[in-house]
Amino acid sequence: MSQRERSELRAVFHPRSIAVVGASSDERKSGSKWVTGLLAAGYTGAIYPVAASGGTIAGLNIYRSLSDIPGNVDYVVASVPAKSVLQLLEECVAKRARFIQFFTAGFSETGSSEGARLEQRMLDIAHAGGLRIIGPNCIGSFCPSAGIQLGPTPLGKIGVPGAVSFISQSGGIAAKLLEYGVARHINFNEGISVGNSIDLDAGDFLEHFANDPGTRVIGAYLEGTRDGRRLFSSLRKAGAAKSTVVWKGGRTEAGAAAARSHTGSLASPAHVWSAMLRQAGVIEARNLEELADCLLLLQQLGPFRARNVGIVGGLADGGGGISVSGSDACNDNGLAVPPLQEETRRRLFDFIGEVGAILRNPVDVSPAQFKGVDAICESIRMVASDSGIELLIVQEDVDIMHSFLGIDETRIVNAFLARLPHEIRPPLVVVLPVGSAESQRRPVEEDLLAAGIPVFPTMARAARAISLVSLRPS
Amino acid sequence: MSQRERSELRAVFHPRSIAVVGASSDERKSGSKWVTGLLAAGYTGAIYPVAASGGTIAGLNIYRSLSDIPGNVDYVVASVPAKSVLQLLEECVAKRARFIQFFTAGFSETGSSEGARLEQRMLDIAHAGGLRIIGPNCIGSFCPSAGIQLGPTPLGKIGVPGAVSFISQSGGIAAKLLEYGVARHINFNEGISVGNSIDLDAGDFLEHFANDPGTRVIGAYLEGTRDGRRLFSSLRKAGAAKSTVVWKGGRTEAGAAAARSHTGSLASPAHVWSAMLRQAGVIEARNLEELADCLLLLQQLGPFRARNVGIVGGLADGGGGISVSGSDACNDNGLAVPPLQEETRRRLFDFIGEVGAILRNPVDVSPAQFKGVDAICESIRMVASDSGIELLIVQEDVDIMHSFLGIDETRIVNAFLARLPHEIRPPLVVVLPVGSAESQRRPVEEDLLAAGIPVFPTMARAARAISLVSLRPS
Repeated sequence: MSQRERSELRAVFHPRSIAVVGASSDERKSGSKWVTGLLAAGYTGAIYPVAASGGTIAGLNIYRSLSDIPGNVDYVVASVPAKSVLQLLEECVAKRARFIQFFTAGFSETGSSEGARLEQRMLDIAHAGGLRIIGPNCIGSFCPSAGIQLGPTPLGKIGVPGAVSFISQSGGIAAKLLEYGVARHINFNEGISVGNSIDLDAGDFLEHFANDPGTRVIGAYLEGTRDGRRLFSSLRKAGAAKSTVVWKGGRTEAGAAAARSHTGSLASPAHVWSAMLRQAGVIEARNLEELADCLLLLQQLGPFRARNVGIVGGLADGGGGISVSGSDACNDNGLAVPPLQEETRRRLFDFIGEVGAILRNPVDVSPAQFKGVDAICESIRMVASDSGIELLIVQEDVDIMHSFLGIDETRIVNAFLARLPHEIRPPLVVVLPVGSAESQRRPVEEDLLAAGIPVFPTMARAARAISLVSLRPS
Repeated sequence: MSQRERSELRAVFHPRSIAVVGASSDERKSGSKWVTGLLAAGYTGAIYPVAASGGTIAGLNIYRSLSDIPGNVDYVVASVPAKSVLQLLEECVAKRARFIQFFTAGFSETGSSEGARLEQRMLDIAHAGGLRIIGPNCIGSFCPSAGIQLGPTPLGKIGVPGAVSFISQSGGIAAKLLEYGVARHINFNEGISVGNSIDLDAGDFLEHFANDPGTRVIGAYLEGTRDGRRLFSSLRKAGAAKSTVVWKGGRTEAGAAAARSHTGSLASPAHVWSAMLRQAGVIEARNLEELADCLLLLQQLGPFRARNVGIVGGLADGGGGISVSGSDACNDNGLAVPPLQEETRRRLFDFIGEVGAILRNPVDVSPAQFKGVDAICESIRMVASDSGIELLIVQEDVDIMHSFLGIDETRIVNAFLARLPHEIRPPLVVVLPVGSAESQRRPVEEDLLAAGIPVFPTMARAARAISLVSLRPS
């Protein structure tokens, strides 16, 4: 793909106009939801609903055909039956549209030879007419800064624009990553669901994101490819230019069988993929949570190296078990929890004493509370200042803190944690376990995330993500 | 331990009276929080606060010493400095108290020889006086049906009484299990934090729960033991009598080092523990989430065997990626996702057609929605009725359902799922991923849990728990 073509893909995410074919005045139809979704998400370009029935939707005139549209059409969303796709493609070529994205399914993924033949005819028309195809069997593009929501969702949920871009061979996984990501303050730049990807494919978008100045982190869910060599080359470019994380679906026998029915992908053995990703400098995640965890970590901290971890728990109570299980979680994932320097341990001992405390690393700072809330903060700072620590994990149990310290003192500790990254050298990660009091925990999570701190629900998830991001071969 | 002694441990959870030594009129002190916690949790026995200062707390008279208390004392909570424990023990013996639980820390877990010597002297006094010790360095007993909260928490949170009992060598882990469990409708019968367990230990409580008619499921967090043979014997009795799940903390080098500082436990190598648990018929969990997931699964379904899993996704949309990743998660954990019977696949095909659907297993039922919400339910029932399926996992994405089906139709599907276990042979498990709309997802989770269905946040967590519970050697 040439530099010109790559920069052209920017228009997939920033089209000046979008035609939605298959929108109608019945707002429950998928095509209609695309229109209401664009309006709800705040898309400011021209929206042209198209359906043979005509009428209006959400105050917009529905055109009876593409040719009736007065202005240029950059991007066409097709929510039409499979039998009408060829005619629609001809109309797009006549209208000089640049991209068409097919929500329509029922092609090669069904395993039928007619499906595959139809895809070939679609490609022939598009190539001859200078039109690029996204999909079929996909939910298309996503771009918060352009006000483009993902798929036919009338809610138009887009989150806050950011620097994480994603590619997914599954619309469902793309939607889940977005839902889950927005809840955790993963802020997206651009995203794409490529489906059967008969024309533009994951490799094209990997290269686009590798070159896109607005993208710092790339995430991808991939099931398979028709051209392994080509994909490897694209992964390599992505891995070299940006922090890139790939979750490969269909790693197992049952998963590969499902992938054949899903996107028609011929899956390669898992170890071949793992080796390819490693060589490409790409991080491999095994499920949605690992993918999201790595994206969050990279968004908040950028790429980093850390093997020696400091762990602080028991900000109010309960630090003993956290120390043990946190150590297990880190060691399980190849991270070390080295004893603190003698100097640090002496300072901690002089400051908070030893009864009930564990000062070796992990550090259970709970006795510090008897000297007041500032002493809790100061003891955390002492651990962070230890010269042997390359990354600091603080486990905060909001339910216990509220019970032991009260709401106001808990707030003081969290304001301290939010400032801490500006004061200390090692990156800070916070583990904030889910408990029975989500209404108390959630605002703390929001504040820490907004302060740029990666927050994880469990020590095991934190340790796994840190290990994946930080210990990969360079 | 004799039958009489075992039944005596019932009084640890159902004492007729509790003295709290170290309570004062300052409600911020730990001892005081124990008193306010018992009141908040609804304990109906006599509560006797004790402190040399006298005064009142929460309307209760504070006795200046144990001997001043007019009635009998079954259970003593000690929140006093380590230097006063011997005198307190003498007073307990004089008062003929049955159990004393020490919140007090600073004994053998500090690694000091004085700490260990002090523990020996505590034991000598207790043995001579017919008094049993819980702890030290622990947060004691928990019993919702008796209105006893766990530890010095003034909120008195206890959840709903149930049939799951637990033992923890860490107070913090016990508190987290409780917090996390209550949020997921794990309903507890009795629980105990044993700390250093110089007298009554995990083995004693394992045997108590093995014989306790109110306990169906036992969970334990253990770090180590001084008497491996004895613990093995107790685990064996527990494993034979009840569904028992153990999380062993300190599996790794760093974890074992932390465990030494925490409860003074000498940890054995992880593989020795794993072999012991397997032989005892006990399920081994690796972290808090796995422990809680197994307890929930066993509470909701009882013990069961299932290797062949049916997976349904895409109740409204997005079933393709779920099918692939769900298959991977099951295969990763030793579960099979066998193709449905030819008969079932034909019925599904005739009913919902093939476009966009995956009918092999996993089944993406999303096209059924075009026939109406009842068709979604009917297609789930078809998969559940397949003769080759031993357990059914349904992934429901509430955010997608609300967007595609609307709130009312989503409610119909969930009412159907809540009834489904009464209609079908295989157990039902629901995966309800966390998204950006917790306020919508959470009530669905509550309803399904209340209907007796185990609900998990991810396919990987569900598959792991099903595998641990169902595939263990018998």
